[in-house]
Amino acid sequence: MITINENYLKLEQNYLFSKIGKKVEEFQLKYPSKNLIKLGIGDITRPIPRTILEAIHKAIDEQSSISGLKGYGPEQGYGFLRKVIVKNEYSKFDIQEDEIFISDGAKCDTGNIVEIFSKENVVGIMNPVYPVYEDTNKMSGKENIVYLIANENNEFKPDIPKEKIDIIYLCFPNNPTGTVLNRQELTMWVEYAIKNKCIILFDAAYEAFIEGDEIPHSIYEIDGAKQVAIEFKSFSKTAGFTGLRCSYTVIPKQVIGYTSEGIKIQIHNLWKRRQSTKFNGTPYIIQRAAEAVYTEQGQKEIKENIEYYKENAKIIREGLINKGYKVIGGKHAPYIWVKVPKKYTSWDFFDILLEKYGIIGTPGVGFGEYGEGYFRLTAFGSRQDTIEAIKKIDEQEKV
Amino acid sequence: MITINENYLKLEQNYLFSKIGKKVEEFQLKYPSKNLIKLGIGDITRPIPRTILEAIHKAIDEQSSISGLKGYGPEQGYGFLRKVIVKNEYSKFDIQEDEIFISDGAKCDTGNIVEIFSKENVVGIMNPVYPVYEDTNKMSGKENIVYLIANENNEFKPDIPKEKIDIIYLCFPNNPTGTVLNRQELTMWVEYAIKNKCIILFDAAYEAFIEGDEIPHSIYEIDGAKQVAIEFKSFSKTAGFTGLRCSYTVIPKQVIGYTSEGIKIQIHNLWKRRQSTKFNGTPYIIQRAAEAVYTEQGQKEIKENIEYYKENAKIIREGLINKGYKVIGGKHAPYIWVKVPKKYTSWDFFDILLEKYGIIGTPGVGFGEYGEGYFRLTAFGSRQDTIEAIKKIDEQEKV
Repeated sequence: MITINENYLKLEQNYLFSKIGKKVEEFQLKYPSKNLIKLGIGDITRPIPRTILEAIHKAIDEQSSISGLKGYGPEQGYGFLRKVIVKNEYSKFDIQEDEIFISDGAKCDTGNIVEIFSKENVVGIMNPVYPVYEDTNKMSGKENIVYLIANENNEFKPDIPKEKIDIIYLCFPNNPTGTVLNRQELTMWVEYAIKNKCIILFDAAYEAFIEGDEIPHSIYEIDGAKQVAIEFKSFSKTAGFTGLRCSYTVIPKQVIGYTSEGIKIQIHNLWKRRQSTKFNGTPYIIQRAAEAVYTEQGQKEIKENIEYYKENAKIIREGLINKGYKVIGGKHAPYIWVKVPKKYTSWDFFDILLEKYGIIGTPGVGFGEYGEGYFRLTAFGSRQDTIEAIKKIDEQEKV
Repeated sequence: MITINENYLKLEQNYLFSKIGKKVEEFQLKYPSKNLIKLGIGDITRPIPRTILEAIHKAIDEQSSISGLKGYGPEQGYGFLRKVIVKNEYSKFDIQEDEIFISDGAKCDTGNIVEIFSKENVVGIMNPVYPVYEDTNKMSGKENIVYLIANENNEFKPDIPKEKIDIIYLCFPNNPTGTVLNRQELTMWVEYAIKNKCIILFDAAYEAFIEGDEIPHSIYEIDGAKQVAIEFKSFSKTAGFTGLRCSYTVIPKQVIGYTSEGIKIQIHNLWKRRQSTKFNGTPYIIQRAAEAVYTEQGQKEIKENIEYYKENAKIIREGLINKGYKVIGGKHAPYIWVKVPKKYTSWDFFDILLEKYGIIGTPGVGFGEYGEGYFRLTAFGSRQDTIEAIKKIDEQEKV
């Protein structure tokens, strides 16, 4: 008799954003003529930069001849892309090309990475947080989950744990709270990991929203991080790749795990085995698109989009503060974390904004129980929608 | 202390095709001027049909405006693609659009599907076979593996098991042996599965190579299969998508698994949860490319390529038979399974063909211990290479 993985039954029945999608769909059926302002799922609205589209056209044209055909590529990604990533992002930290793994999404990588670790690990996951970390750990049967609570008391930056944790998920700039860690704060995490033989899974998907050099753009800016940290990066929000699908994961060869008997194993090798067995590479034409991100013109164009979204973040942040809301994030980050009026739960607030104004945000509790009482808005909407949303959200909804 | 998933240590250190790739790389360094004839990994060599490339150009052009931008798509795939797949492949079997899951490769899907089943299942895997099935089961800690042996005694079509098996992997047209099951044979498997509350994972990646209607093109042609079978299909070999990456998995809602207490659970729901949590969809432009496969012109163009590869299969099959080799497959299938001379192991034969003629094939033992003594050649090479290879392989190498 075929038996299922019962860990799935411990999950919420729907992935958060699927649930929101369903609610929105129902709303649209009910009020087909109402305009929607989408500040929920965090999808981009700026067109994909011209330089990137041209790179795809060119890569497609290559394929029309037998000599230009690209079939199966290297599972870890093409050398041309890994090379420009190292050159532009990691040359300062002596990261090698073969320490970069090209993939089709940070969601896939942060989700699939759980497979290479044992069930016995104590896993530290921020709460509130992007739901994929917790769901994928639960799905794979990992039961020792410790919540790294982010709340008003610690300014939404979790405290360094007192207990021993083996795997720590950190996401900064944070989704959903928009908080960032400064150099000193991030150093404390790296020191904790080194001391406790722990691995940090560092999700840096929103790194491009950091201004200046004071806030670390990569965890490898911190001494010792190359021994203990895996970094996830994505072109989704940075370069408009949410529909094109390209990301990468950095696993320095020094990062070590242990067998139950204490034998050292290179994590890089395990992930390489995982990817070469269960993945067949990101499409060639998409990797050429990602390569174009690093051209001079590509950089110029993506920066224009990022600046646009940053300005949106500022509009939301300042607009809501002016209306008396308590607001976290929205600086160095595309997410704005808003305290909802005390009389409402975060799903109440979701329903009100949707029904009353057609505004779609994300209820804080969708990111974990400690997100209750908060609401996430994203800076990825159009300028017009962003301004309209902030105008519409009434002062009377405030705390 | 971070501990690893020790199941990985039970695997061969390298994925088969990575190992072959490395041997070939070493050979090329040693003899940089020698030409290689690649009949190993099974990658395509015909250009991607023009209609498909044009569909990508068009989809890219859509994206240059804000209104045409496609960001995150539905994790299960766009409706337009699921619709044409149902219409063209499954309308006879009353499969619904939401029973189709679009993905970026049958390798990913056949690998990831293990996640939704419990470790306790007895897993029946053909031997020899595509290594991903066994590797991914081992990686996820499934230890009860029964080999469904395919050898000369059963004409490389495994016998229906005497014992109870919970999950059965079948791949027909088979990789690596090129064998196919007729209607009666496949019916016996479906009946076994119904009787034993077992699920069949049916890999139909090479279905397009079947001629005529006598051999079933889909497992759903068999009565009752919709209760017990999941079917994996790919555009890779059919339409030249090995570098574009698009495939799909069919999970009828009737397919049921059980909890350890015997409660029925819809497998469709589990996979949907898996995909929406750990996957973010196949790129929009790639899904438009796959849609174009089903246009009249697209069908015409892909069929020309398939006919070309079929002719290659025939050349290899007949050429080697004429030289006295024992040959299986190569009819209704792009793979030719050749018996190697008794004095050699299959890796010996690999080395000889590479060193002596620059021909790359795949050693049978790479597909499992029962593949020892055999060698796989693929029909995906160029015509010229195929003819040359068969000319070169000397009669003295024969059995």
